[in-house]
Amino acid sequence: MPNNENTIDRIQELIDTGTETQLSEELNSYHSADLADIIQQLKPEERLKCFPIIDEEKAADVIEYLPPQLQVEILGDIDTDLASRLISKLPHDEAADVLGDMEEDESQAYLEQLPKKFSSEVRELLTYNEDTAGGIMTPLVLTVYDNMTVKEALDTIRIKAEKENMELYYAYVVDKHNHLVGVVSLRNLITAPVDLNISDLMSKDLVKVHVDDYQGHIADIFMKYQFNALPVVDLYDHLKGIVTWDDVQDIVEEETTDEIFTSSGIVTDLGDDDDDILTGSLAHSIKARIPWLFITLIGEFIAVTVTNRFDKSFTALPIIAAFMPLLAGLGGNIGTQSITLMVRGMSTGQISLSSGWHQIMRETITGLSIGAIFGVLVTLVTWGWQHNLELGLIVGIAMSLNMTIATMIGTCTPLILKKLHIDPAVASGPVIATTIDVIGLAIYLTLVTWYLIGVSTGG
Amino acid sequence: MPNNENTIDRIQELIDTGTETQLSEELNSYHSADLADIIQQLKPEERLKCFPIIDEEKAADVIEYLPPQLQVEILGDIDTDLASRLISKLPHDEAADVLGDMEEDESQAYLEQLPKKFSSEVRELLTYNEDTAGGIMTPLVLTVYDNMTVKEALDTIRIKAEKENMELYYAYVVDKHNHLVGVVSLRNLITAPVDLNISDLMSKDLVKVHVDDYQGHIADIFMKYQFNALPVVDLYDHLKGIVTWDDVQDIVEEETTDEIFTSSGIVTDLGDDDDDILTGSLAHSIKARIPWLFITLIGEFIAVTVTNRFDKSFTALPIIAAFMPLLAGLGGNIGTQSITLMVRGMSTGQISLSSGWHQIMRETITGLSIGAIFGVLVTLVTWGWQHNLELGLIVGIAMSLNMTIATMIGTCTPLILKKLHIDPAVASGPVIATTIDVIGLAIYLTLVTWYLIGVSTGG
Repeated sequence: MPNNENTIDRIQELIDTGTETQLSEELNSYHSADLADIIQQLKPEERLKCFPIIDEEKAADVIEYLPPQLQVEILGDIDTDLASRLISKLPHDEAADVLGDMEEDESQAYLEQLPKKFSSEVRELLTYNEDTAGGIMTPLVLTVYDNMTVKEALDTIRIKAEKENMELYYAYVVDKHNHLVGVVSLRNLITAPVDLNISDLMSKDLVKVHVDDYQGHIADIFMKYQFNALPVVDLYDHLKGIVTWDDVQDIVEEETTDEIFTSSGIVTDLGDDDDDILTGSLAHSIKARIPWLFITLIGEFIAVTVTNRFDKSFTALPIIAAFMPLLAGLGGNIGTQSITLMVRGMSTGQISLSSGWHQIMRETITGLSIGAIFGVLVTLVTWGWQHNLELGLIVGIAMSLNMTIATMIGTCTPLILKKLHIDPAVASGPVIATTIDVIGLAIYLTLVTWYLIGVSTGG
Repeated sequence: MPNNENTIDRIQELIDTGTETQLSEELNSYHSADLADIIQQLKPEERLKCFPIIDEEKAADVIEYLPPQLQVEILGDIDTDLASRLISKLPHDEAADVLGDMEEDESQAYLEQLPKKFSSEVRELLTYNEDTAGGIMTPLVLTVYDNMTVKEALDTIRIKAEKENMELYYAYVVDKHNHLVGVVSLRNLITAPVDLNISDLMSKDLVKVHVDDYQGHIADIFMKYQFNALPVVDLYDHLKGIVTWDDVQDIVEEETTDEIFTSSGIVTDLGDDDDDILTGSLAHSIKARIPWLFITLIGEFIAVTVTNRFDKSFTALPIIAAFMPLLAGLGGNIGTQSITLMVRGMSTGQISLSSGWHQIMRETITGLSIGAIFGVLVTLVTWGWQHNLELGLIVGIAMSLNMTIATMIGTCTPLILKKLHIDPAVASGPVIATTIDVIGLAIYLTLVTWYLIGVSTGG
């Protein structure tokens, strides 16, 4: 895996001063995954010099490893004939993804140039929503018929696997109408007596997904059952394709990114890839970030209004204003910890609604304990700094209350949202942080005004 | 996948009132993954009634799907003979994990009861750090010799695969000293002429990991090359085992949880599983949460000290205190968005150090744009509310500056940490939020004091 700055420098030097043969030899010596990394770090004009001199099989492989935007960019820039040869070498699902990312007229032009059978299979894939099983699956499935013997099945596999670039995990068993009726692992096929009937060897207890199932559901099933591949069927139980574990790995990464972004108040469902927020247009990135900031703005104006009711207290004892960031900061921090633990726990399945009550108790005790510790700390520091025990006590008590309440809000809100069938990540970060701000400041300022200002004006 | 509350109710009813045969039939009708879900939702005493009447093959499967804590709990509670039979049915790596989680004397007792060969292989696995390839791999590998023909190799596989419960992805080719020399896919083996030599068929260009490689590295390699399995070798290139994609899926989930927790200021490297923070002892959970809260406390006391220097401004114009939560809240929010985008982008490989400069420019422009929009909004709202254009302008300008600076801090800090080889997630959340608080408040209060208080005292 020789993928560092030296490699890039050497290749850039070969592009500038070396012969085409030298460059070609160098490029073709890398694994496709490494080569894809290298290509990504080259300048666009350098890529165009490199791509045509990579062996075509390898070049198609490299395309598979590249991010969608770059796939489209490179295929659009290189010679059209080469591009269409490379596309025809991609697995069906990958070809459909690439063509789906292109402009309509561009993809149509390619579809007409591609081999007929390949093109019609890819066209079918393009009809599915790209976030569903239909959009993710590859239609090339290894199938055998239920009335074959093991020997016939093995012979079929030998011929099919040789002819088509097919994933070999399981052989799916269909009847003559292409209804999915069972599954045989390759392992069982190889070790079974050759004259056994497939219908006697196959497992009928199979887990399958529907072409319209959403990717999150598919990922959950993979995670749960830990299969290498899952068959995809239509409404009539016809076998349409398989989804393999490497497709799922991409889904899981995408869903995790969604969860993380959503929790931080970044809108992810603008209809495009999440990648666009990082690398797409600025307008897109701004659009993704403004909605929750705007809601925070409204929430914090509520905090401003609440705080402003205590303006007389600030005049009487201005130091109480100085403590506001401390209260808000620590409340927000411990609240975020609770939200994060809950949202992640629910997403990995460690916390269910039924164990929710237990979790609320647990987090409340945690909040009380940490609140007590920090309350005492804050009291002592404030007392020592301002030589005012009363102020120290009030700030400390407000801190304890604030942290305990923040923990409870952070724990309960995701559970309530889940109960209401709203994605807990959605409203989590910004809304809860603002709520904690408002409640924390209200408690603190009320306490301060009652006890300190009451005392100071009365005394 | 009939896994809902009704299922649990029905099974609990069978436990209470049904016969053992009815219960056993019901339990054995589920897929092991579903059964593991069911077992997790039962009470401990109900589990003990269920476990012994599940078919042993299936029970061992169920154990594999359970979380580590529950594995140890159940194996400790059921009959010792049954427990040791179940352990001996687990894959080697899983058995080593389970025994590694037990008390020393308990695991030793089991190791002595287990079949000799199994026990010695598991003992070897237990010598590796559980976060390295050695601790994750299974030592049962399908190997063939480089001097075999395809026919001999297939015969060997047939016998081995039948005898041992072996993962069948690739056959690894070793020389007579067990040095890893190549790999053949099952697909190639099945389709190759039977009299071809393995050494002519195998691929020598293989990606492998070392027994001491850490799990994060292994996951990165899997993600990059998208293999189903990777061979694990020792220092002398002896083949020691394989790591399969389902092991990696667990690693990825664990690493993601680590990243998310760390970003929210939860300490994950206390030497135990992350699960413990959610379900382990309260003391553990408090220990994981206090460190970053304590650092926030120090940071926010700096904010308090800075703010307190402006006490005369609060006396003169108390409403300026009321705007502090607004400044801090929105600055923190947009800063968090930037950190999240950067940390996640670096962890999925979309952002590299070399593209960092580009990203800083991009985020700065985003921050400036959003800051301008919100600055204008805040100016207008404040003007309308307080009928004081000057105050509105100052708050609005402070807001723009604050949001732009927050974006830049949130973008640069993860890059700088990465450059210093510190995990960007580590110091992200709490420290940056506090820094933004301090800087934002300092800017706002300075502006307010210069212009407003200066004007009001001077005019």
